[in-house]
Amino acid sequence: MKFVAEALNLSPIAAKRLEEKNILRQAFIKHPFFADVIEALKLDRKFGEFEEGTLIAKTVDGLEVVRGYPKIKRALTLHPTIKKHFRGEVVLEEKMNGYNVRVVMFGENVYAITRGGFICPYTTEKARMLINSDFFKDHPNLMLCCEAVGEESPFVPKEIYGVKTIDFYVFDIRDRKTNVALPIKEKEKLAEEYGFNLAPILAEVHVSKAHEVAKDVIEELGRKGREGIVIKDPKMKRQPIKYTTSESNCSDLSFAFRFFGEYGKDFMFSRIIREGFQAFEFDERDEEFKRRCLRLGEAILKAMVESIREVKEGRKVYDKMRLRFYDLEVFELFKEHIRRMGVSAEFSEPFEDNGSYVVWFYRYMKSTTDKIDYILRGNLWQ
Amino acid sequence: MKFVAEALNLSPIAAKRLEEKNILRQAFIKHPFFADVIEALKLDRKFGEFEEGTLIAKTVDGLEVVRGYPKIKRALTLHPTIKKHFRGEVVLEEKMNGYNVRVVMFGENVYAITRGGFICPYTTEKARMLINSDFFKDHPNLMLCCEAVGEESPFVPKEIYGVKTIDFYVFDIRDRKTNVALPIKEKEKLAEEYGFNLAPILAEVHVSKAHEVAKDVIEELGRKGREGIVIKDPKMKRQPIKYTTSESNCSDLSFAFRFFGEYGKDFMFSRIIREGFQAFEFDERDEEFKRRCLRLGEAILKAMVESIREVKEGRKVYDKMRLRFYDLEVFELFKEHIRRMGVSAEFSEPFEDNGSYVVWFYRYMKSTTDKIDYILRGNLWQ
Repeated sequence: MKFVAEALNLSPIAAKRLEEKNILRQAFIKHPFFADVIEALKLDRKFGEFEEGTLIAKTVDGLEVVRGYPKIKRALTLHPTIKKHFRGEVVLEEKMNGYNVRVVMFGENVYAITRGGFICPYTTEKARMLINSDFFKDHPNLMLCCEAVGEESPFVPKEIYGVKTIDFYVFDIRDRKTNVALPIKEKEKLAEEYGFNLAPILAEVHVSKAHEVAKDVIEELGRKGREGIVIKDPKMKRQPIKYTTSESNCSDLSFAFRFFGEYGKDFMFSRIIREGFQAFEFDERDEEFKRRCLRLGEAILKAMVESIREVKEGRKVYDKMRLRFYDLEVFELFKEHIRRMGVSAEFSEPFEDNGSYVVWFYRYMKSTTDKIDYILRGNLWQ
Repeated sequence: MKFVAEALNLSPIAAKRLEEKNILRQAFIKHPFFADVIEALKLDRKFGEFEEGTLIAKTVDGLEVVRGYPKIKRALTLHPTIKKHFRGEVVLEEKMNGYNVRVVMFGENVYAITRGGFICPYTTEKARMLINSDFFKDHPNLMLCCEAVGEESPFVPKEIYGVKTIDFYVFDIRDRKTNVALPIKEKEKLAEEYGFNLAPILAEVHVSKAHEVAKDVIEELGRKGREGIVIKDPKMKRQPIKYTTSESNCSDLSFAFRFFGEYGKDFMFSRIIREGFQAFEFDERDEEFKRRCLRLGEAILKAMVESIREVKEGRKVYDKMRLRFYDLEVFELFKEHIRRMGVSAEFSEPFEDNGSYVVWFYRYMKSTTDKIDYILRGNLWQ
């Protein structure tokens, strides 16, 4: 695609290499709701300096590049990992449990791009309602990197934040073309100025005792069922590091074992390994360790038994999400979006609620359902 | 190899196909201890009707084929699986937790072949002491399929059977060339006649209530830390099915997570899945379910924390086995055998004990050690 090479400023050789790699995918559905976008492609894998999920768009304003959100590496132990990777002060910021969205403006409208690089109709509709677009008029080169959280999430519905619908929490403000992140103080100032929610900043502490503070913070977040923290350099010059609570690891495992046919062994294994290192670092007392073991075991087995029971009772295994649309055209667009993402889904009829439309989104877990059914009919394993 | 084609009675085309597949491996080390064997190869993978682990040998008696022990499929639920696969009566036999050995006679001596098809010096030495070789003189076409169990096992050391050294428990008697198994009554008769230990036969029951009896048997075995059962057709005309206790699944998991760098995710995943289906089928009461969850969580986390602590304290992660040799030549032979199996191991000096030699066999888990060390030095994951 010629506009991609131009937007990314690729040499003819690099452009040819990109084409050969076959990693460009359609990033949006042509529709009046996305009127400012003429063409848009996304990178399915990293290419040179450009992250996976990078969006390249021909818009009414011209060519635009929105860099993919970088992978954040993980600490398996707080000590000595924090000390090794940072100098001076570090900021401990809450890592909220939703889905990663980059919000930008093209033409006159706000667009919400999910991690993989798709312009999501569901998220875009909400971003247009909730995000003060003056910010982009004043700072057209910046993007808001947000966690979209709440109960009405099509991807990661959670009740833990008290958000009944869905809302955006900014954790980074970055130059959308270079991916350079603003220092945390500037991010806070802009959030204040434009009225954005921020992912909570929980502590600022010297590296020498950051692991101790982080441990307390993690235990406190765990008690509330929250996901974890991102440890950041206040100037955002060094790469951030993430670290999660046991409750979040277990909640992931619960999800993965509920849908064990769909989820990869790598996903499960990595979360169990996290628990092992945290148990080593955190559990001085036997009863804490025992509680952790029980939590892990229950996360795994309760989830599996629930799915097995469902199939035993003749039902299929589904993940069920409540969604809300303010425009039924967006609902149609979202259905098509989900189809193109390759997700096997069913939707209820929309029903009016307070001037908007509530829809149930059922994600059918065919592999899990089929595997359980096969076993329950008395077939052998292997 | 020409003698293989002749022994397996292969057509020239089949012989060529076997050669192309490149699945023949050396099955023994030339040594006076194995004097009756001139050449021996084994199948590294299934070939036609011949199972993986099939041994083909040129011996002082001529060409011999010892068929590989067939894979036994697993039930994930007792009901309706047993009912679906058997008719009339079934026998519930204890599946002991050791390693699978086929014992045969070549020339004047007994040979012990491990699952993969190797003639094992360690096991052969013990088989020659413990197995009444008159059996083979009377029944040269038969092989004894045994579980080698006990504390002094180089592969699966267990204290649960009260066997301080190592002993053999016959679970099948088969025609070594056709792999046809004798009916259970005949196996019992021969074992009685020649004084062999048998893997315990725990019940004979009609299929209609076999799942209920099996559940009680499994719970009882579980309380003793035993592995599980094999469900058999008394005539051995139908394929047996295995089913394991929760304690055995957890013991496997404990082993796998103690050495998580060495063990595959498939190994771990399959055992967790077994627990899920058993929890579904067995745990009517909440407290049983909770105990199972705790058992699972502890199996995983205790093992990991133990290995992490070892590396933290500057040690390497090892599996440690106590072995006993009656002839130091066999010890030398076993070291070479282990080396050829590709196992990274160290051995203590042998020390005399009661007319035999005790040796400590350390299996070094390099990958687990290195991974933990990398993390504990503050490096990031992914």
